[in-house]
Order: sequence, then structure tokens, then C-alpha cells
Amino acid sequence: MTKEELIKGIKTGDPRSLSKAITLAESSLDSKQEVALQIIEHFGPQKDTLRIGVTGAPGVGKSTFIEAVGVEILKDPTKKIAVLSIDPSSEVSQGSILGDKTRMNKLSSMDAAYIRPSASGNNLGGVSKNTRLAILLCEAAGYNTIFIESVGVGQNETEIAKLSDLFVLLISPGGGDELQGIKRGIMEVADIIVVNKADGNNKSQAQVTAKEYSMALNLKPKNENNWTPKVVVVSAHKRQGIQPLIEKCLDYNKHIKNHWKQNNRKEQMKYWTKKNIEYLLLSKIDQYSDTIESSIENGVLPERLAKNILE
Amino acid sequence: MTKEELIKGIKTGDPRSLSKAITLAESSLDSKQEVALQIIEHFGPQKDTLRIGVTGAPGVGKSTFIEAVGVEILKDPTKKIAVLSIDPSSEVSQGSILGDKTRMNKLSSMDAAYIRPSASGNNLGGVSKNTRLAILLCEAAGYNTIFIESVGVGQNETEIAKLSDLFVLLISPGGGDELQGIKRGIMEVADIIVVNKADGNNKSQAQVTAKEYSMALNLKPKNENNWTPKVVVVSAHKRQGIQPLIEKCLDYNKHIKNHWKQNNRKEQMKYWTKKNIEYLLLSKIDQYSDTIESSIENGVLPERLAKNILE
Repeated sequence: MTKEELIKGIKTGDPRSLSKAITLAESSLDSKQEVALQIIEHFGPQKDTLRIGVTGAPGVGKSTFIEAVGVEILKDPTKKIAVLSIDPSSEVSQGSILGDKTRMNKLSSMDAAYIRPSASGNNLGGVSKNTRLAILLCEAAGYNTIFIESVGVGQNETEIAKLSDLFVLLISPGGGDELQGIKRGIMEVADIIVVNKADGNNKSQAQVTAKEYSMALNLKPKNENNWTPKVVVVSAHKRQGIQPLIEKCLDYNKHIKNHWKQNNRKEQMKYWTKKNIEYLLLSKIDQYSDTIESSIENGVLPERLAKNILE
Repeated sequence: MTKEELIKGIKTGDPRSLSKAITLAESSLDSKQEVALQIIEHFGPQKDTLRIGVTGAPGVGKSTFIEAVGVEILKDPTKKIAVLSIDPSSEVSQGSILGDKTRMNKLSSMDAAYIRPSASGNNLGGVSKNTRLAILLCEAAGYNTIFIESVGVGQNETEIAKLSDLFVLLISPGGGDELQGIKRGIMEVADIIVVNKADGNNKSQAQVTAKEYSMALNLKPKNENNWTPKVVVVSAHKRQGIQPLIEKCLDYNKHIKNHWKQNNRKEQMKYWTKKNIEYLLLSKIDQYSDTIESSIENGVLPERLAKNILE
């Protein structure tokens, strides 16, 4: 498919065209990525979208949560949802979305939903870059609510925050931060904290946990967007508490919409530009290998040699 | 103290001069580091030294081990020992060596021993760089046996291997690799594995553990220096098994001396030169901040902007 055909396909809402464009964006070949960049540039930035980062320890129910919220959101016929899962710890074969489709049965069967994992990709910037371009392509295709789901363990949640407008942290009833594998610093960037699994025997424990986190959040200063983080109790599995949560998300969206959101996206772009420059600079390293090989001699200091080579 | 005075002091074996030179090497100021580099270059490379990297999980007894081995080695009046501790997880105040001195009471009171932690340092290359230059300065001062001790948790043991001729892994009796917090890949680069704490109730368990590791090592190919890793059982606390261990170290030193050692140090220098180039390239990033700030506009892609800026 040519660039023009892909653009046309994306315009008409053809998910296959979108998938192909994302695959181009994930390619390690510069020429292929260039096509994806041009497609994104053709459509330009889409302002009226909400990018929701979702993180939490393994087993906390992120997929079930996204499915429950997604299905509820799609009751509004103006909404279209894309779910992008980031899993740098596993290698996702390009285009294979089966793993995620089966995890979100109902959502994946709906026409207004698009689900795709980010290939881990060894190319520049890795997963975050792939996901960032995928977000832009989904938005170009008319998806106005984008979920960015962290799947892998030990990945950089801060990078997910750098891709999102709204950052949601899922926790289980009971257990402290450390027990739940929540990294330090994550609590500080969360806009909404969701206590999931508030069903069966966990119901009262979930309320206690929510109260504890609310109290802790009251002690900390407001987020830089002047928003006081909210704590919500849900059971994604039983589809309980989902509507109130969505209202909180809409409140948040209203809160940031006038000014902060566009500004924040601009700041994120600066961050990613820096990361790209970093990558481009580092990609030059291998070109020095031969010089190092031939210049090394007994007693020369690495500091000295490095400076000489770059001079 | 001027450069000339420091050189003179180091030549006459004055530990204060050595400490001052190391502090210069650890400085984040280019001009100060330059003095340290010139001092190192003045003395040139010292061939007849042995750099011993020591790693192992917290609590395995690394300091007690180094003290026991060090005191034993110093029975040979031709030997001088330097112990450099690397702890990137804690911030060591420059020049403060009290923490380590108290951990190695006997050794630190001996004239032929020099003990110093590497300041964690936020400067280029971080701890590894500081330690590398400290090794060279200690060797210039006539210390012919250098211990590089990992102290912090979660640091890069591979970097310690890149600073050493001989890599020693300490383990406790019983417990698998994972239980002992031994990272994957470390076993592969260890030249000597020491089962420590073979005393009291642990004595027979230590023998069992040693046998298990010996068997595991027999299954793996020889190290790249054609050396079959040895397993030794000691009690650093009770000073038992230390002499046989030192003999193994001397065997190893003889084994690598003719060819591999100098070659390996050359390979390590290549590695550190690359790291230095990497750092120098990355240190340029901040100079682009203003350009990024002024060039960012709605809709521009970080990929595009980064390329334009570097062109």
C-alpha cells in the first residue's frame, strides 16, 4: 500500500490501514518510519483527544479495568477508543494482537475500539517511541480516547506519564506501596488512583485502602496542573463504580482542557525531542570503533583518547 | 599542593598526596581532573599489579574477606594493598573514609595498606570512572595489589569486571543464586568463587554449596582467558582457608600474566574510551535546550525536530 492509499484508508476509518501505518512507524528502517512520519504530518495534531496512561502492579487488573471503562465510554456514540499496550519485557511479534484481543474480549469485538500492543522494538527510542507514534496515528484515524497500558514489569512508568494527559494508577485493596510493587515517584504523578477489585471479601478492605490513600494525598501538594488527585473505588470485574470513575476523568479533562493540556503536550514534545537527539548522537558511537581500535596503545588514558577522537 | 608536589609526594609514598590526587580525579571540574590525568600520565602504566574485583550480595562479608586476605598478603614485604570501595547507592562525602576504615580495622592500621571509598560523584562516567582513575593513581603510588569492592546494591557488577584482572564472587553457604541476589551473568565472569562463612554450624553446608558450584562450573565452558573458575571455601571471620585462596589467586595471576592480562587491560581501555565518547556526546545535549525551546511548535514531530537541529 502506498502512502496515499494508507492516508485514504485511515481517513475512511479502515483499521487495517491504521495497523499498517503503525507497523511502518515501528520499523527499524528509516525509510519506512519516514512514511509513517509523513502520514502523521499529513493529518496534523488532533487537539480534542484524551490520552490516558494506565499503570499498576501485575495482577491488579489493568486489562479488565480498561475493558470495563472502554465499554462504558463507548455508550457515547461520538467516542472511539484505542488501547495501546506497552510491554518492553516481552517480544511481541509484529502485528500480533491476539494476546491482547483475548484479554479484552468484549471491547475488541466493538467497531469503535482498536486494540494493539506496541512491538518491543530494538529501534531508536524503543517502545516509548513506537507507542508515541502509534498514539498520533490512532488520533489521526479518529480515535479520541487513547489508553496507554503498561504491561511489562519494571518498565519506566515515568515514560508512560510522558505520553499521557491523564495518568491513572491502579492498586489492589490492602497492602502498602512497596508490597504492591509501586515504585517511588509514581504516586506523585498519578491524577486518579483507582482501588480495583472492590468486590466479594475485598469490599470493605478496598474502602479502607481508598481512605488511606485519600489521606496520604491530602498531605501532598497539588499536582503541577493544579489538580488534587482523586481516589476511586471500583470493581472492574463486576463493572461497579465505573460510571463515577468516568465522571472523574471527564472532570479532569475539563480541568486541564483550557490551557494545561496543550502546554503539557508541548513540554512532552520537548522531552521526546531531547531523547531523539540523544539517540541520534549515540548512534554515531559505532563509527568510532575503528579509530579506537587503531589508536589504543599501552598507557593512553580513555579520557585523553576520547577527547582526541572527537576533536 | 601543585602538580609537581603531588607527584613528588606520590613518589615518596605519602598517602596524603595520593588522597589529594584521587580527590582531583573525582572532581567534576575539568581543570582539576586534568591535573589528575597528567599525574597518571607522568607515571605511565604499571604492569606488575593485580586488580581484584570483589562482589557478592550484601551481608556476604566482603569487607571481612578483603581484610583477612589483605592482612595475609601483607606478610610478604614486597606487597602493598589498596582497597577501593564502590558504592553508587550512597553518597560518600569527599575524602571521608571513616566508614570503610572502621569496617577494616586491622588492615587500615597497616602502613602498606590504603583504603578509600569512591565518591559516588555525579560527574562524567560516575563511580566507575572515579574508581578507574583511583586504581591508576594507587598503582602509580606503588600499590601492587588493588581490591575493587562493590558495596552498593543493584550496581553494575559488569562494570567492576571491566576494571579488574581477577574477578572474585563471594557467596554464602546454602541458597541458590537467586536467593543470594546474584545477578544472571555474574557467574559467567567470575574467576574464583569463594564460599564464605564456612564456620560454626555452616561448615558442612559450605562444603555442599562449594561442591554444587564446582559441578555447575564444570558444565560451563572455560572463561575467555582459558581459565577454569575455581571454588574455594573460607571463613574470613575465623581467618581459615585464606592461604589456599591466595595461592589460587597467584595461580591465576601466573596463568594470565604472559599474554592475556595486558591484552585484557587494552580491551578494557577500548570499552572505557567508548564510554567516554558516549559521555562527551551526551554532554552536548543541554546546549540544544534553547533551540528546542524556540523551535517547538504545535504539530512538529520530535523525530523531525531532532534531525533538523543536528543537521
